[in-house]
Amino acid sequence: MNWLNLSPLLTDLYELTMAQVYVEREMLAPATFSLFVRKLPRRRSFLLAAGLGPLLEALEKLRFSEEDLAYLESLKLFKPTFLDYLRQFRFTGEIWALPEGTVFFENEPVLEVTAPLPEAQLIETLAINLINVETAVATKAARCVLAARGRACVDFGARRTHGLEASLHAARASYVAGFTATSNVLAGKLFGIPVTGTMAHSFVESFPTEAEAFRAFAENFPERTVFLIDTYDTLRGAEVAAQVARELAARGIYVRGVRLDSGNVIELSREVRRLLDEAGLPEIKIFVSGGLDEEKIAEIVESGAPVEAFGVGTKMGVSADAPYLDLAYKLVEYDGRPRMKLSEGKLTYPGRKQVFRRRDVAGVFYEDELGLREEDLPGEPLLRCFMKEGRLLSRPPALSEIRQYAAEQLRYLPADIREGRRTPNPRISKKLAELRQRTEEALRRGN
Amino acid sequence: MNWLNLSPLLTDLYELTMAQVYVEREMLAPATFSLFVRKLPRRRSFLLAAGLGPLLEALEKLRFSEEDLAYLESLKLFKPTFLDYLRQFRFTGEIWALPEGTVFFENEPVLEVTAPLPEAQLIETLAINLINVETAVATKAARCVLAARGRACVDFGARRTHGLEASLHAARASYVAGFTATSNVLAGKLFGIPVTGTMAHSFVESFPTEAEAFRAFAENFPERTVFLIDTYDTLRGAEVAAQVARELAARGIYVRGVRLDSGNVIELSREVRRLLDEAGLPEIKIFVSGGLDEEKIAEIVESGAPVEAFGVGTKMGVSADAPYLDLAYKLVEYDGRPRMKLSEGKLTYPGRKQVFRRRDVAGVFYEDELGLREEDLPGEPLLRCFMKEGRLLSRPPALSEIRQYAAEQLRYLPADIREGRRTPNPRISKKLAELRQRTEEALRRGN
Repeated sequence: MNWLNLSPLLTDLYELTMAQVYVEREMLAPATFSLFVRKLPRRRSFLLAAGLGPLLEALEKLRFSEEDLAYLESLKLFKPTFLDYLRQFRFTGEIWALPEGTVFFENEPVLEVTAPLPEAQLIETLAINLINVETAVATKAARCVLAARGRACVDFGARRTHGLEASLHAARASYVAGFTATSNVLAGKLFGIPVTGTMAHSFVESFPTEAEAFRAFAENFPERTVFLIDTYDTLRGAEVAAQVARELAARGIYVRGVRLDSGNVIELSREVRRLLDEAGLPEIKIFVSGGLDEEKIAEIVESGAPVEAFGVGTKMGVSADAPYLDLAYKLVEYDGRPRMKLSEGKLTYPGRKQVFRRRDVAGVFYEDELGLREEDLPGEPLLRCFMKEGRLLSRPPALSEIRQYAAEQLRYLPADIREGRRTPNPRISKKLAELRQRTEEALRRGN
Repeated sequence: MNWLNLSPLLTDLYELTMAQVYVEREMLAPATFSLFVRKLPRRRSFLLAAGLGPLLEALEKLRFSEEDLAYLESLKLFKPTFLDYLRQFRFTGEIWALPEGTVFFENEPVLEVTAPLPEAQLIETLAINLINVETAVATKAARCVLAARGRACVDFGARRTHGLEASLHAARASYVAGFTATSNVLAGKLFGIPVTGTMAHSFVESFPTEAEAFRAFAENFPERTVFLIDTYDTLRGAEVAAQVARELAARGIYVRGVRLDSGNVIELSREVRRLLDEAGLPEIKIFVSGGLDEEKIAEIVESGAPVEAFGVGTKMGVSADAPYLDLAYKLVEYDGRPRMKLSEGKLTYPGRKQVFRRRDVAGVFYEDELGLREEDLPGEPLLRCFMKEGRLLSRPPALSEIRQYAAEQLRYLPADIREGRRTPNPRISKKLAELRQRTEEALRRGN
């Protein structure tokens, strides 16, 4: 695919300085790092995992070029032996992770890496970054999909994501979460997501009249036309749209819909619907865009407004109310010994872990238990092994499969979690609680 | 540089469908689009322009490959004549813009593009995206720099920006805004920004004791060592750091600083300072990180806490409280005729424009007037011509020059704007107001 900038220098300097110390001291024993969210953002009651696909792809391809090494050498920080280590570097570790599309909660590992300490350290920035952006956006998008109650949501985010690569993450993550299409052409090409779009205000303004603009577009795209009707005056625009649509219908061109992008869309959509119906055009759908998020979508849906699809852009594309996750990549085991942090408010759980998910008889999510990986607790173990010795264990699933799995996950979330009234925390297994206590005591004594 | 994914398919589908209609109908006359912020985010009183450099680079290089064209053909939307147009496509237009580092306000164009209509339309997504991300982040970073009152701010954003390319935008934009360094190694290589870093909690945890971890790092990097002291207990960590620093000093290795990453850093920094001073180590600086933004920085600075530098990560890197700008790219003139939108709450100003900035005798910003480009109003005209016929008029300025210019811009902002107590709006010139009225009347009559 090659859409990610895979330079191994896209990392924090300290990953490299720490790795040099490890390599120098032959601290090459296996280390396990756990990637998890310490605390959900204020307005989130669940998260939808995404970003693993791009991460695994990046891990397989990570190599330092001679140009990279020359730059590192120029910093006068690194020793020739370490630069040689980087020259040979490839990721040889093991990755356990939640499959993309899995719903998860606080303190549950979304990913665990086991690799020789310097390797596991070197991939920190990469791992946090890719899981952070796609999970934050997939979660926001899932909230929009749930609010839309079966109406289509389309990704219009490209123009205000954080750079253009981010627009690809947003298109991918929102499709996983249940969006039906994207306006992002490259995302269509790379990921096979259906691409769609309507017209801009500038298009309407480029013609002497709205009617001429509408006709010109429909003649060029007889099967894909949605008229944007709010450039000058929405109701007048709807009248013009109805008139042109009837003309076109007489010529065998059927207009699909009209788009409202401003104003009170609940009221306007009702009036536009009435106008279109009175013009004998009940099949023309009303499409809404403009500053949408899950709250605005819920408001429109709950009002009963005759809106059939939503173009969701900026606020989803940057997850505007929660643009990042409190996602931490923490050492939990090194050389067979459990490790943890005791910093104020930032205690971690030591050891390699597993999440066991329980459902009720109807299949609805009931509770999670966070245990040690080797434990055999009731429930479905959620973390799966995706990579061993730096190699993928199987072909990555198609995006459509991930999307289907995510839909299943969302369907079996209890209503109180889906609606944000409850944020579950996993139970902690007895063995994990004991390990944590023993490790904490040893650290407080030892330091 | 080649750090941007420059695929011309990184665009919204409708840019291409609209362009096909324009090309088919030979609507190739010059169009001017104006890129401006309709309304500042709630917690912003000024914006700092950034992103023009990457945009100009992208415009010069924009080409459709045969692979791109094959994908477009597969969509069964585009005609062979239009695909031929894209095969020949290169941007041939003119770009006027605020130089990067310019302070600007609502309704002031940050960029105006004049090009044959399809070209000007095709670059919309690209232009909004790159200016949006870098301006949002540069503005957030500038607020941190102002709050730090001369103390250093360092970019630690890479791990939670929206994808890895976004981390480069954030490093670049924050350096423009006055940050002194970045942890992002690739940003160091590409942009010549000083790279820096300390150590992670995992580093401390990988050693049997804190003291051993500190010693190992300092021996490897005798000139660059900052100890992270909050892994287990900050005050105990400070004691260990002081003890190891004294040992090392006896061997000629001088520790630069300690970093606090959790807890009440105002209180902790005072106690740590006292500990270090009592140990005869007044030259060891205290560095703070962990969830910082301009408010937290201001609180620390105003408390008089002995903190000498800030590591500012996620909240700056994603501009967490204002992760996007209400940035619009609007047609203002086509084929010599002024154009505007009348949508509710989204009225635009027609015509090619200029911003005239006035300063008082001390050089302090006084007021802006938004006029037509050909007007000759008092004040400094802010928009400059950067590109003609698709070619840069001069070599892009070095990032260090842009950074200096931004510092000057921030220095001459009046205190009430800098501190968020006033958000100025430009005056509208008489000619522009008249043109708007005439255009609006004509549109309301004509449609």
